Amino acid sequence: MSKKIYVTGLGPGLYEHMTEAAKQSLTEADVIVGYKTYIDIIADLIEEGKEVRSSGMRKEIDRCQECLDLAEAGKTVTLVSSGDAGVYGMAGIMMELVEKSKSEVEVVVVPGISAANAAASTLGAPLMHDYCVISLSDLMTDWEVIKKRLHCAGEGDFIVSLYNPKSKGRPDNIVEAQKILLEYKDKDTPVGIVRNAKRANESYVITTLEKMCDAEIDMFSMVIIGNSKTYITEDHLKMITPRGYAL
Amino acid sequence: MSKKIYVTGLGPGLYEHMTEAAKQSLTEADVIVGYKTYIDIIADLIEEGKEVRSSGMRKEIDRCQECLDLAEAGKTVTLVSSGDAGVYGMAGIMMELVEKSKSEVEVVVVPGISAANAAASTLGAPLMHDYCVISLSDLMTDWEVIKKRLHCAGEGDFIVSLYNPKSKGRPDNIVEAQKILLEYKDKDTPVGIVRNAKRANESYVITTLEKMCDAEIDMFSMVIIGNSKTYITEDHLKMITPRGYAL
Repeated sequence: MSKKIYVTGLGPGLYEHMTEAAKQSLTEADVIVGYKTYIDIIADLIEEGKEVRSSGMRKEIDRCQECLDLAEAGKTVTLVSSGDAGVYGMAGIMMELVEKSKSEVEVVVVPGISAANAAASTLGAPLMHDYCVISLSDLMTDWEVIKKRLHCAGEGDFIVSLYNPKSKGRPDNIVEAQKILLEYKDKDTPVGIVRNAKRANESYVITTLEKMCDAEIDMFSMVIIGNSKTYITEDHLKMITPRGYAL
Repeated sequence: MSKKIYVTGLGPGLYEHMTEAAKQSLTEADVIVGYKTYIDIIADLIEEGKEVRSSGMRKEIDRCQECLDLAEAGKTVTLVSSGDAGVYGMAGIMMELVEKSKSEVEVVVVPGISAANAAASTLGAPLMHDYCVISLSDLMTDWEVIKKRLHCAGEGDFIVSLYNPKSKGRPDNIVEAQKILLEYKDKDTPVGIVRNAKRANESYVITTLEKMCDAEIDMFSMVIIGNSKTYITEDHLKMITPRGYAL
């Protein structure tokens, strides 16, 4: 019996940015498990008759337990996650659950294009130098820890990618993040905000650290703040962080 | 005339982690340009008769100038890069050159699985929380800047992904990086080192911050150092950074 769970990153949403390995993990699965929105996105890739179990948001632990139970019963299970399953995705919790259960089930993480990398490609080349990835969601992380990290990111002149920048429940975290970064970064530091990166309804704006909160930012947005060398192209359409080549 | 340059991230090396969009950019190109090693890897994906221009290492600027010249002459060009072209890859320099030349050529960055995400998936789920990506190469970046960033990464309790951790020309940067991080992180902090992530000859070790420099580390390695909550599984085969779910 296989007793295997794939945790698959689907990439940023459209088929074209999904990998062959991700597709193979769908084919190989006896059962595909995931959050309903993601299951809907990959519907065309799922063979007719394949067992699919979709569930609502914030059911992460239940969903992983379901995967574990199915795998323990001998099924090959593929748990899908958007972006890269290993970045604020389902890979960690699935592995934690297997570990705590002292199960012998093998968990294979299939990497995907992360939301930060997807958004960066839309913006041009903002992540060409050292960068930090920080989630502004304080649902499971102490806000003081997040603030401390923002200070460190600012002090180190890192490029900063902000996941979960804003939701209805926490509209002010992004404003506080901006204030902290303004202590270290110039007010004209380029900022790119991408909504629905690489999806059909993608949109983006290029702005500055001082003005970023005037832009529309929501839970489908990725915010990328440059370092001290990042600049905006003359046509105002892209942002570039030089790597250091003498051109 | 199209006047378009794709800068394509091939992912970590094997076809299975390449995206459909990356493959399409090879098909669409009149000319494919890249570092010889990467051109060799994708040889089977290049149609017979397609023009290919490969070059040696450290010819980045020449390679980009060649792409620009070809595009200005009306060719659709695809410049390939390993991993994600937008992370220490060819996207930035290509865009910089187009910008400085005041060219009208359109540059489209096609994202790929980055080396950090690829290595993380092999190690389990180390990047499940806020993390920094830092290159230890001081060829184009002042070593003092890199050290400062290591201090900030340590102080912020970030997970740290180290690109270019070691080469023959700079064998000691990784030792100094370790020393800096030991000022902030416990000596038993889990560390994963992946060589040739997702390639046929992939290998990895899981060790600790105190012992990491005993392991083989070279320019084909990615080093991922955990945060204060990262742990190693009981079988010593994987590392997991909890996201914060109460299991």
